[in-house]
Amino acid sequence: MRLAIDAMGGDNAPLEIVKGALLAAEKFPDMHFTLVGDKAKIEPLLDQHPKFDILHTTEIIEPTDAPVKAVRKKKEASMVLAIKEVKEGRADAAISAGNTGALMAAGLFIAGRIKGIDRPALAPTLPTINQGQGFLLLDAGSNMDAKPEHLLQYAIMGSIYAEKVLGNERPRVALLNIGEEPGKGNQLSKSAFELLKDAPIHFIGNVEARELLQGAADVVVCDGFSGNLVLKSIEGVALSLFSLLKKELTSSLFSKMIAGLLYPKLKGLKKTMDYSGYGGACLFGLTAPVIKAHGSSNANAIFTTIEQAQLIVEKNVVKTIEDLILKTNEEWKK
Amino acid sequence: MRLAIDAMGGDNAPLEIVKGALLAAEKFPDMHFTLVGDKAKIEPLLDQHPKFDILHTTEIIEPTDAPVKAVRKKKEASMVLAIKEVKEGRADAAISAGNTGALMAAGLFIAGRIKGIDRPALAPTLPTINQGQGFLLLDAGSNMDAKPEHLLQYAIMGSIYAEKVLGNERPRVALLNIGEEPGKGNQLSKSAFELLKDAPIHFIGNVEARELLQGAADVVVCDGFSGNLVLKSIEGVALSLFSLLKKELTSSLFSKMIAGLLYPKLKGLKKTMDYSGYGGACLFGLTAPVIKAHGSSNANAIFTTIEQAQLIVEKNVVKTIEDLILKTNEEWKK
Repeated sequence: MRLAIDAMGGDNAPLEIVKGALLAAEKFPDMHFTLVGDKAKIEPLLDQHPKFDILHTTEIIEPTDAPVKAVRKKKEASMVLAIKEVKEGRADAAISAGNTGALMAAGLFIAGRIKGIDRPALAPTLPTINQGQGFLLLDAGSNMDAKPEHLLQYAIMGSIYAEKVLGNERPRVALLNIGEEPGKGNQLSKSAFELLKDAPIHFIGNVEARELLQGAADVVVCDGFSGNLVLKSIEGVALSLFSLLKKELTSSLFSKMIAGLLYPKLKGLKKTMDYSGYGGACLFGLTAPVIKAHGSSNANAIFTTIEQAQLIVEKNVVKTIEDLILKTNEEWKK
Repeated sequence: MRLAIDAMGGDNAPLEIVKGALLAAEKFPDMHFTLVGDKAKIEPLLDQHPKFDILHTTEIIEPTDAPVKAVRKKKEASMVLAIKEVKEGRADAAISAGNTGALMAAGLFIAGRIKGIDRPALAPTLPTINQGQGFLLLDAGSNMDAKPEHLLQYAIMGSIYAEKVLGNERPRVALLNIGEEPGKGNQLSKSAFELLKDAPIHFIGNVEARELLQGAADVVVCDGFSGNLVLKSIEGVALSLFSLLKKELTSSLFSKMIAGLLYPKLKGLKKTMDYSGYGGACLFGLTAPVIKAHGSSNANAIFTTIEQAQLIVEKNVVKTIEDLILKTNEEWKK
């Protein structure tokens, strides 16, 4: 297996990206790496490691670049070349911690869609507080104006991933909605509900945003606009509460001292809410595995994302999606 | 001024509802109350208070009732009669802590819409962590499939409320979106952005869900589906984190003892996130003020909601909305 990794994407590139890949090289003896980026910066970090190749380029897509435009203009960007490696069969999966929008655009333009999938979906795993495996949210922002059949495709893709990669035998797939009862929601969610209840998945109905962190479902489908709102609401509240907690607990010398004694507990709390431990966000629906690692990834987060990529390749997730979507579409036509 | 209050709605009715109204009767010497509900249950709590009338009915809309059906069938329900009191000029505002969907339906059927407003909006105030006044979110779930012009109307109504009732001289109105730059989002938010930038409000552009609790805007507009998702995400994460914090801090005798010393601090944190202190959720766009108090309201929350209703009436919010909407619509036609 060979992974193409954008060595220049993310806040801590290339150092932490390379360090994460080196950790993975130790764990997976059969894995090889193509690091895409500035040779002068990457080579000194590698120490002539035999499993690493460098694909040299100095072009980089910046976090502030307009996604579609950047992908069209910067044809030699590290992220673009990494996906090309996969598309052209020289690698099995691509990973980047760079500009999310650009990675989605590059995935779509270069790798292209699986036949039968209308829109790819961005699928991060979010934490749950019940010490579960978290839940997969898709789409978290790839496709803004989704149609009911897109949500059906997301459900199938998410269910396959949860089964194959997360090892969940019968993943509970739910529709994100504003109430639990069937018939709730907007036109999109009402129509999607009708499609989902007949889909080849374990559909458990609507789930409210309030229940997500409690582990109410394993796979949650919605349009990209709603998914992105929920993702960022969860992030925002968690960050705000931690900063508030810190402020309250350090507001006097007395509480500061006491809070110090509780430090390990509070750290545990923060860890529960830290979703970098769940790996990156997959781009489902492309003909090749493309994974978005967190922009702030350190070596450990990159390592986790590589582990995830390894499973996606080993378990043949893309091919399984292709087959099931084909089958579902054929049954639909009957 | 006279308020019509549904004495039978909410988890703690009628006791806490009546107690809240009695508190308000003390603070506002010129306020009179019509309590709608079961006389046998309300009268003993009132002690023949001279400012209170009881409008007797035994019909109640339950929290589990299907909203529209309930309002159509239960014509003598306490919530329905309370709104009728306002509509027919016997009271100035109606308050209920009962079934939210039913209150929205009853408001629409009985009080009706302001001319020029296509859809009423449910507008709760949510907390911010910067010790600010919180922010007004609308629509939080009244109208599922909104059009761009609805969002424009929400913005105008929310801005008037923030100015008149919250005392914010130049409220910052923002569009809930998945990115800050203009041009981001789905079809709805892109089109709404174009309308909002020319509206007679202080429009500050897009705001991301991540920034809401930091106090990035005073009034945040969106469609009812998105608003409800964000509202419930915020609620859900806050509740989950508090329960997790409690679990971590009481997981050993040692941490339990120490956490006890921090109790006042932790309580302060919880209070910051408790939005019942901000009053109820107004239903904007109706010809009469209708306010939804929290279902779990205690006497203090009811008192706060009454204070809010008092300001809405005193500041003539409904009339101001009517005038500004009329003016905006006329300018549009030019």
